[in-house]
Amino acid sequence: MENFIFHSPTKIIFGKGVEASVGEEVKKHGTKVLFHYGGGSIKRTGLYQQVVDSLKAADVDFVELGGVQPNPRLSLVQQGIELCRKENVDLILAVGGGSVIDSGKAIALGVPYDGDVWDFFSGKAVPEASLPVGVVLTIPAAGSEASNSSVITNEDGWLKRGCSTPFNRPVFAFMNPELTFTLPPYQTACGAADIMAHVMERYFTNTPNVELTDRLCEAVLKTIIKNIPIVLEEPENYDARAEIMWASTLAHNDLLSTGRTGDWASHQIEHELSGIYDVPHGAGLAVVFPAWMKYVYRRNIQRFVQFAVRVWNVEEDFFDPEGTALEGIRRTKEFFRSIGLPVTLRDLEIPDDRLEEMAEKCKKGPDGTVGQFVKLTTEDVLNILKLAK
Amino acid sequence: MENFIFHSPTKIIFGKGVEASVGEEVKKHGTKVLFHYGGGSIKRTGLYQQVVDSLKAADVDFVELGGVQPNPRLSLVQQGIELCRKENVDLILAVGGGSVIDSGKAIALGVPYDGDVWDFFSGKAVPEASLPVGVVLTIPAAGSEASNSSVITNEDGWLKRGCSTPFNRPVFAFMNPELTFTLPPYQTACGAADIMAHVMERYFTNTPNVELTDRLCEAVLKTIIKNIPIVLEEPENYDARAEIMWASTLAHNDLLSTGRTGDWASHQIEHELSGIYDVPHGAGLAVVFPAWMKYVYRRNIQRFVQFAVRVWNVEEDFFDPEGTALEGIRRTKEFFRSIGLPVTLRDLEIPDDRLEEMAEKCKKGPDGTVGQFVKLTTEDVLNILKLAK
Repeated sequence: MENFIFHSPTKIIFGKGVEASVGEEVKKHGTKVLFHYGGGSIKRTGLYQQVVDSLKAADVDFVELGGVQPNPRLSLVQQGIELCRKENVDLILAVGGGSVIDSGKAIALGVPYDGDVWDFFSGKAVPEASLPVGVVLTIPAAGSEASNSSVITNEDGWLKRGCSTPFNRPVFAFMNPELTFTLPPYQTACGAADIMAHVMERYFTNTPNVELTDRLCEAVLKTIIKNIPIVLEEPENYDARAEIMWASTLAHNDLLSTGRTGDWASHQIEHELSGIYDVPHGAGLAVVFPAWMKYVYRRNIQRFVQFAVRVWNVEEDFFDPEGTALEGIRRTKEFFRSIGLPVTLRDLEIPDDRLEEMAEKCKKGPDGTVGQFVKLTTEDVLNILKLAK
Repeated sequence: MENFIFHSPTKIIFGKGVEASVGEEVKKHGTKVLFHYGGGSIKRTGLYQQVVDSLKAADVDFVELGGVQPNPRLSLVQQGIELCRKENVDLILAVGGGSVIDSGKAIALGVPYDGDVWDFFSGKAVPEASLPVGVVLTIPAAGSEASNSSVITNEDGWLKRGCSTPFNRPVFAFMNPELTFTLPPYQTACGAADIMAHVMERYFTNTPNVELTDRLCEAVLKTIIKNIPIVLEEPENYDARAEIMWASTLAHNDLLSTGRTGDWASHQIEHELSGIYDVPHGAGLAVVFPAWMKYVYRRNIQRFVQFAVRVWNVEEDFFDPEGTALEGIRRTKEFFRSIGLPVTLRDLEIPDDRLEEMAEKCKKGPDGTVGQFVKLTTEDVLNILKLAK
């Protein structure tokens, strides 16, 4: 186990009807709020009005900024920063899924910063302050409601980049599984891939002696694997929606990476897909992750055997660890397919004429490689993309 | 799953040598510190001097109060409160195990309170403020380093009572597994029983659909069951000590009880044992818990089957759930015995002439019963104590 700091101070308010008290909670942290949201879905479901009513009942002053798109855009973030400055906003209330929350976090970082907020995403500067961010979550997927990260797409070059900082941890998150009843099947499945990817990025590590966190990872994965097929059949199954929603937060609040080094190559590679082709992040991950697994599993076959046996209940072939490992990878891909996700670039309707460009553009570390489990060169990334065709 | 609020804001600084930076961390939260500790062990191991050096290097002013005993006493808490007021202390630094931390938390609650701090433990008053508490942990057991609870013994009547409040969450906890190398085998084993009891109190619930938290509980239990025998053989095995130490925190920071109602009867019953006979809390739990299990398992046999199969790897007898359940209970008791713990009152050298008194004294809820999984009457508690003879 490696040394670590774990600090996940987000207050989670979870369960049926909890969003009714959002105004009261907001009042503890701010006096003037930016109510930030996406398209029209929260207006259709009535959540928009509920939030407005709760803010008004608590006598909280607010301004609005809707229109966040999936793969949230830098231009809207910049618009939000200006609005907050003009209106003296002191808290961002993000109501939606990961895109809205990430956009809200970026606005919160930008308001007190003199330079261009993109500096934090390009690695040119490190945040030293932010406004507090509160959340009402509607999509279990990104885990942004308690994570330290935000991912933004810069339309100038379609660069999708993340910024991780303790300032990105929301101060509170309201999570009502009922709000996820109306999520369409495809979006539910994309969320599942995102959640599972967050766990698997942490699970595939070369750090030895990480037994407790291995088992915690397996707990989250098994919960998703069991409950996603249930909600695809029964979208209003509260208990299954609740398991998924709570699992999505724990998958990405860094508990599962305490004491271990994660990989994150699949996320970096996927960012190139969704940056250029604007596909849902979860769909891209369902394509990239199994290809990545196939490319790297020989680095630590026993870890993939453990994954196969414990997560997928593969019967271990004690005389054929490689076969056991490969069966786990096969079941991962098959699970994604079974819940309606794409598992190849072709399924995503992504042509293969820009694979080299994506491999080249994929954000490398200081040593010119991507990922930690295996340090991938540009050529490796290209090979993985080809495996994903 | 039930509605819940989860807020565990303690910053965990974990790993080799981390305690060297305690002064710096203290400085972020206070200017005048009460350095609170137990007997002489931290002086023998050198930790005392390290903390003093770190505080001095960070230019932090402090006063000292040592002498915390296991089952920490109200009288020392009251002494600490007076000292803090006189010296204008604004942060309690508790260096030790659960007793020291609990004592420190009680002092922190008492300083800003006009009445008698025991009011918070007797249920006469609810805390509305406290000083911040920081921790350097030396014993993985009580989980007090990130929990919301404190348990204090009032010498007047030898009443051992707990107080749970968000104010009890420490602001930071330094956790270096190396500091636990010198823990004697018996104390290590008592810690294991305490950790496992914290998980099992949460595991045995009547709340349906708590799959994720069930699995998280099982992850923590399996980690303890695997690693305790290792450290009893090799006290300086860093990796095994690290697994145990991190598991001890997660067992009791309330993550494992999110969305479910725990039991806590075994803790209440044990408090009577250690309140009167001053036995180690973990040793008392190793005696009480298996007896409690035997008394209540029929309430939900399938939960005990799951426990047996998943935690103890009992091969399920599909035609004899009761037999499977009982085998899990047998293995729990056998495990405690195998790591050197008492499993009967006789092992603890507790005579059976005061069982009625303990059953009577055992703290009941408003309806006159103890526990949630089965609501135990005074007679039930007596029967459990008799089963534990």
